[in-house]
Amino acid sequence: MGTADELVTVTAGDEAGRVRVITLDRPDKLNAFNTALYNAAGDALKAAADDDSVSVVVLTGNGRAFSAGQDLNEMSAQAAGTAPAASPTDGPSGFPRFVDTLQSFPKPVVAAVNGLAVGIGFTLLPHCDLVLVDENARLRTPFTELGVPPEAASSLLFPARVGWQQAARLLYTSEWISADEAVELGIALRTCPAGTVLSEAVALATKVAGFPLASLLAIKHAMLDAQLPAVRRARAVEEQSFAEIFAARRAADDPAP
Amino acid sequence: MGTADELVTVTAGDEAGRVRVITLDRPDKLNAFNTALYNAAGDALKAAADDDSVSVVVLTGNGRAFSAGQDLNEMSAQAAGTAPAASPTDGPSGFPRFVDTLQSFPKPVVAAVNGLAVGIGFTLLPHCDLVLVDENARLRTPFTELGVPPEAASSLLFPARVGWQQAARLLYTSEWISADEAVELGIALRTCPAGTVLSEAVALATKVAGFPLASLLAIKHAMLDAQLPAVRRARAVEEQSFAEIFAARRAADDPAP
Amino acid sequence: MGTADELVTVTAGDEAGRVRVITLDRPDKLNAFNTALYNAAGDALKAAADDDSVSVVVLTGNGRAFSAGQDLNEMSAQAAGTAPAASPTDGPSGFPRFVDTLQSFPKPVVAAVNGLAVGIGFTLLPHCDLVLVDENARLRTPFTELGVPPEAASSLLFPARVGWQQAARLLYTSEWISADEAVELGIALRTCPAGTVLSEAVALATKVAGFPLASLLAIKHAMLDAQLPAVRRARAVEEQSFAEIFAARRAADDPAP
Repeated sequence: MGTADELVTVTAGDEAGRVRVITLDRPDKLNAFNTALYNAAGDALKAAADDDSVSVVVLTGNGRAFSAGQDLNEMSAQAAGTAPAASPTDGPSGFPRFVDTLQSFPKPVVAAVNGLAVGIGFTLLPHCDLVLVDENARLRTPFTELGVPPEAASSLLFPARVGWQQAARLLYTSEWISADEAVELGIALRTCPAGTVLSEAVALATKVAGFPLASLLAIKHAMLDAQLPAVRRARAVEEQSFAEIFAARRAADDPAP
Repeated sequence: MGTADELVTVTAGDEAGRVRVITLDRPDKLNAFNTALYNAAGDALKAAADDDSVSVVVLTGNGRAFSAGQDLNEMSAQAAGTAPAASPTDGPSGFPRFVDTLQSFPKPVVAAVNGLAVGIGFTLLPHCDLVLVDENARLRTPFTELGVPPEAASSLLFPARVGWQQAARLLYTSEWISADEAVELGIALRTCPAGTVLSEAVALATKVAGFPLASLLAIKHAMLDAQLPAVRRARAVEEQSFAEIFAARRAADDPAP
Repeated sequence: MGTADELVTVTAGDEAGRVRVITLDRPDKLNAFNTALYNAAGDALKAAADDDSVSVVVLTGNGRAFSAGQDLNEMSAQAAGTAPAASPTDGPSGFPRFVDTLQSFPKPVVAAVNGLAVGIGFTLLPHCDLVLVDENARLRTPFTELGVPPEAASSLLFPARVGWQQAARLLYTSEWISADEAVELGIALRTCPAGTVLSEAVALATKVAGFPLASLLAIKHAMLDAQLPAVRRARAVEEQSFAEIFAARRAADDPAP
């Protein structure tokens, strides 16, 4: 396992440094999130939040995927007890370290969905403010295929973003949607010609970053204020279901003596 | 008046019995809901919720209507005091027995809107997860025409599903909308060629029922958790208005001596 | 400065007087809201709410604008301390006198957006129930350009009405949108041919006003009940940000001795 820092690339999107580009950089694994990538991405976000010279963040992926979602190999190893123990860190590690930071991020976030977006690669998008998608990107949430609950407050934010009907379709059927459908459904603002999504996202971010930071912060603060309590509650409900489902699986695998 | 059981037909939608089809079966009255139909439909839903072999419910109507709404003859008789007294039952009877059960139903519900959907035949749809409509179906809520308040939390769920503007249009104008408009507005997922809506709904339900029930339950639980407190509050506000409007009508009809 | 009454024209929209038309009438200033116009419009709304003979309100503007937004000259004078002191009035004056009344207005409000709608001229629209726009109208919120927070609960109601993505675009970029875009986004119900928006709005209002007032009041009451607590909270969050941003500006302009 590499160190966290190697899994995420952080660059300036504009000359003034007001746009910070955070790139998920684990292309051989289609940017699947293991604990190290969650931590690296969460820490890169936190650094951008705390840096007064940064006004807007662009989040993208290296290679042909935005993110293939949760790293299922690591998840299986953790379930089997063969994964290395988490190293002591300040605060939460893994999924919550990334999602907690993103869901309350105080500055505008532009997502540049350069390709495949699965699971958390999809469910993180409703936490971003402006989402651009490569015209060839495809998205899905395979929760029912995997037999697991929804995650990252998608049980709340999918209905809020795409309506109850389409949210039910996405969550219950594990179906793929195209980039065009992502726009029609309201998940993304617009599609971009193949290979241009990052440059278009940076251009949009640079435009926004040209306005006074105090105004951007006030807008995001007020928008989040109306949403964050419900997001936190949805996360808790989803995580309770995860605990129950995995407890039931362990009980089935390992009957009491 | 027939017994409750004769007003609803319950069948299996698939060979494995994981899809349960509940058909409103009072076709001579366009499946208008009287107390007996509310109770029969509510009880059929409850039985499906409690049966672990059932994963998904399909709700449809027999004949040319999905449902013409509240049975206004019974409502008038009740208002005039000439309807038979409600027989003692466990828990609530009539409207709340059906709506309470539907609004908190723990499994995915697919509605197959086979024709006319008026009043509660329309306002029950936002409580379903996936709504398919026959291409010739027509829908409306005649609350202003009848001089009554909105019902079944439509004051909350219409704005949530179709936006404030279109909700205000539907609720204030008593206008009809077509099946195509129902899809455009986000009330339904898609239209189906004439006569095929039930088979398409069963096919969709069968697909969803193929996934682990624990995952389906967790998704519905989390989705409802974010919505149910507001639904209950909206129901209470609507019912308070009903009580006030009917009290004012009785006072106007029957001036104090 | 004229008296408040001269800034708003109040007329009957139908013969029976059930439709009340309130026209912002400061055309030489593109109906920009100064304190006097806020008060006049707020008082005209309150009078319509309190008059049992009125069922529906139509809100429009005189001249080529619906409203150009906040009167920035007055705002600058107030900031510089050179504006006349507010005269004593009952209750709040200016912005809150208008917005408090509109956001809790007990009867249906139809907006006839006859032209330019900027700032509060735009952010008041999600508080109206049915919005018609002249096909040549253009709309925008220049908060980031002015370096200020969002206002009038737009931080809550823009996401609720147009989705998070489009709300973020409108609020962060200060971009113009067309009448057609306003309809696509769900801000308006439909466009009207040039010059016809008022007559179409009055026709729609007259149709709605033909239904029993008790039903209209019950619908609006229930719809608002689900929204108003969140609106009040969003207003408070926005106003706190205003206070902080203006305090920071004053501190920058006037360093401590």
